[in-house]
Amino acid sequence: MRVLILGGDGYLGWPTALRFSGKGHDVAVVDNFARRRWVEEQGGDSLTPIASLSDRIEAWKEVSGKQIESYVGDISENTFVADVVREFLPESVIHYGEQPSAPWSMKSVDHAVITQQSNVIGSLKLLWAMRDHVPNAHLIKLGTMGEYGTPNIDIEEGFIEIEHNGRRDVLPFPKLPGSLYHLSKVHDSHNIHFACRIWGLRSTDLNQGVVYGIETPETKLDERLITRYDYDEAFGTALNRFCVQAVIGHPLSVYGKGGQTRGFLNILDTLQCVELTAANPPAAGEYRVFNQFTEVFTVAELAEKVRHAGEEIGIPVQVRNVANPRVEQEEHYYNPKHTKLPSLGLQPTLLSETLIESALHVIDRYKGRVISDVIDPSTEWRPTPVGQPAK
Amino acid sequence: MRVLILGGDGYLGWPTALRFSGKGHDVAVVDNFARRRWVEEQGGDSLTPIASLSDRIEAWKEVSGKQIESYVGDISENTFVADVVREFLPESVIHYGEQPSAPWSMKSVDHAVITQQSNVIGSLKLLWAMRDHVPNAHLIKLGTMGEYGTPNIDIEEGFIEIEHNGRRDVLPFPKLPGSLYHLSKVHDSHNIHFACRIWGLRSTDLNQGVVYGIETPETKLDERLITRYDYDEAFGTALNRFCVQAVIGHPLSVYGKGGQTRGFLNILDTLQCVELTAANPPAAGEYRVFNQFTEVFTVAELAEKVRHAGEEIGIPVQVRNVANPRVEQEEHYYNPKHTKLPSLGLQPTLLSETLIESALHVIDRYKGRVISDVIDPSTEWRPTPVGQPAK
Repeated sequence: MRVLILGGDGYLGWPTALRFSGKGHDVAVVDNFARRRWVEEQGGDSLTPIASLSDRIEAWKEVSGKQIESYVGDISENTFVADVVREFLPESVIHYGEQPSAPWSMKSVDHAVITQQSNVIGSLKLLWAMRDHVPNAHLIKLGTMGEYGTPNIDIEEGFIEIEHNGRRDVLPFPKLPGSLYHLSKVHDSHNIHFACRIWGLRSTDLNQGVVYGIETPETKLDERLITRYDYDEAFGTALNRFCVQAVIGHPLSVYGKGGQTRGFLNILDTLQCVELTAANPPAAGEYRVFNQFTEVFTVAELAEKVRHAGEEIGIPVQVRNVANPRVEQEEHYYNPKHTKLPSLGLQPTLLSETLIESALHVIDRYKGRVISDVIDPSTEWRPTPVGQPAK
Repeated sequence: MRVLILGGDGYLGWPTALRFSGKGHDVAVVDNFARRRWVEEQGGDSLTPIASLSDRIEAWKEVSGKQIESYVGDISENTFVADVVREFLPESVIHYGEQPSAPWSMKSVDHAVITQQSNVIGSLKLLWAMRDHVPNAHLIKLGTMGEYGTPNIDIEEGFIEIEHNGRRDVLPFPKLPGSLYHLSKVHDSHNIHFACRIWGLRSTDLNQGVVYGIETPETKLDERLITRYDYDEAFGTALNRFCVQAVIGHPLSVYGKGGQTRGFLNILDTLQCVELTAANPPAAGEYRVFNQFTEVFTVAELAEKVRHAGEEIGIPVQVRNVANPRVEQEEHYYNPKHTKLPSLGLQPTLLSETLIESALHVIDRYKGRVISDVIDPSTEWRPTPVGQPAK
């Protein structure tokens, strides 16, 4: 299969490229290195020492004998993505190529605009490119469980049957996203659904939970193949950040009460889910939504797991509840369905203590690279009241 | 009240400016004249000979003794809208400043991108400007009934109570918009709702039906005060277009079966609705949605009304069903609620034969200005199959 991976230099995009290439598919990656720049601009860096895209591709060729093609550019600009699609003619497009941080999107009007512009316009241009050049290709789009927010009813996978005043319809599940980043994914979902309804494109929207984990079988083959790992307040997700905090002896910072409940999954399962999705494409005109996570935890539970795993290997870990910089429910009902990927064959890699311990050991290897002052929350969801200094 | 009107040079924005100014409010209008350019770029023009914004403002000053301020610029660019908001410090912002045509948004990827970029990014920058400079002001946003599409259940005003697996919540009404323009309004609605939830802004989203009509009491005071009136395939709405077709002896072009059912309202009622909304602002943090229309008709019924009114005044009118360039249901259930504006005091101006006859007389005055070759549909929702010429 010809597989085009947008955001193929990123945390998930790069391991995905290796997986598909390793399985014998023709893979091309697209990236503009925005993630590298954004993290560096705020003083952070990947915990892992990542190689340049060309060095990665060269290393992969040495290790596997396989060639990954690459296109460097911004999918939201000019005709770049249309040119790539027309040249590569993918059968599957796996789209990770978006600004992925909720806090980053809330930093300022400029951050908000870049987020919605890059994500929404980039995806819109991709849809037109697919419409014009590869209308039968399968768009596998990375969405987020955060599109749903935390409604007081069970969350279905994309659509819900509603009975109202004696009539029924199956309609898109209502969305209550919690940041301007999450909103950009909601906008994407509506645009993609439209492209399937009106143009007959086929797409699977993967509403992914919070991903944790560092290594995949392919990235372990050579140190130059390692993927990025962020732990800063903007790009580091909860469990990944907690693990770094544990290793450097920083208290785990739980925002607010810690009763915020979310779906989580291992990076190994992201790869499995994307592979299963690509192997089982939807019909022409079909827009599917899969809720992509394997387990549900509260943030406080995650912190406790890391604390306990640390204790087991002799690292003392403190947990500290800090003022919540976000506006979100800290205790709430949460019951999202996630049966579609298991029904395609997903075998979950559950979060065990052993797994956390092994993550802590890998992180320990790169401990000297940690920049500790980018970890504490610095982005407030609400404007700073007049007269008070911004954090 | 200090009232800022975005899109204040447009079909509805200009009469709204006159109405609020006439009632003694301090009014400023913002426009970048994009609508004038877009219509001219495709070879069309307003049926009515509209004056430049500065001539309009000058004429209004002569007629009423009142001054309307103006700011010329693009709200989606740089810090323009923030600068305007900070300088004018509005108490109400009435936002018509968007690309308003569904067919225009479907013409090409560039049209689609301009539509979503201008509308979504423009509104997003406005929200940040209000957050930073006038957090207590009331945002009155023009949305569209087309955000809902045509679901098989009754359409509520913005929110619906859903009972699901034994639990209940009131959630945003699911959206099934029918064009990339309508999608831009859905994206706006989600962003505005968020700004109210998270930042405590207050907003009313007016999901407006299809507007018809030419004159308002204020625009009739001087010919230089007349508002624009579009009848081309992209910017002309159904009834307005039919009336022009009737006057020039062109068959009324009904797309497909004509069973498409929509909400309609008179331009006089748009003004009434916006006035009532401004006079009754929501609480801080509240996001309200009003369905803004007074009557529901099928497109075929509208055509028949125009045919009959034409007959009464001696104009023979033909109705012709043409191939539908859009992708839409041509026969469907449609029962949208619209009780909130009437409960604030809206007195509907219903569509009578007399009213159509009077519109036909006004149009007849400008008959010589009609450019007839921009009326027939030229924008297809679906790509033209390979090997066939584009229309």
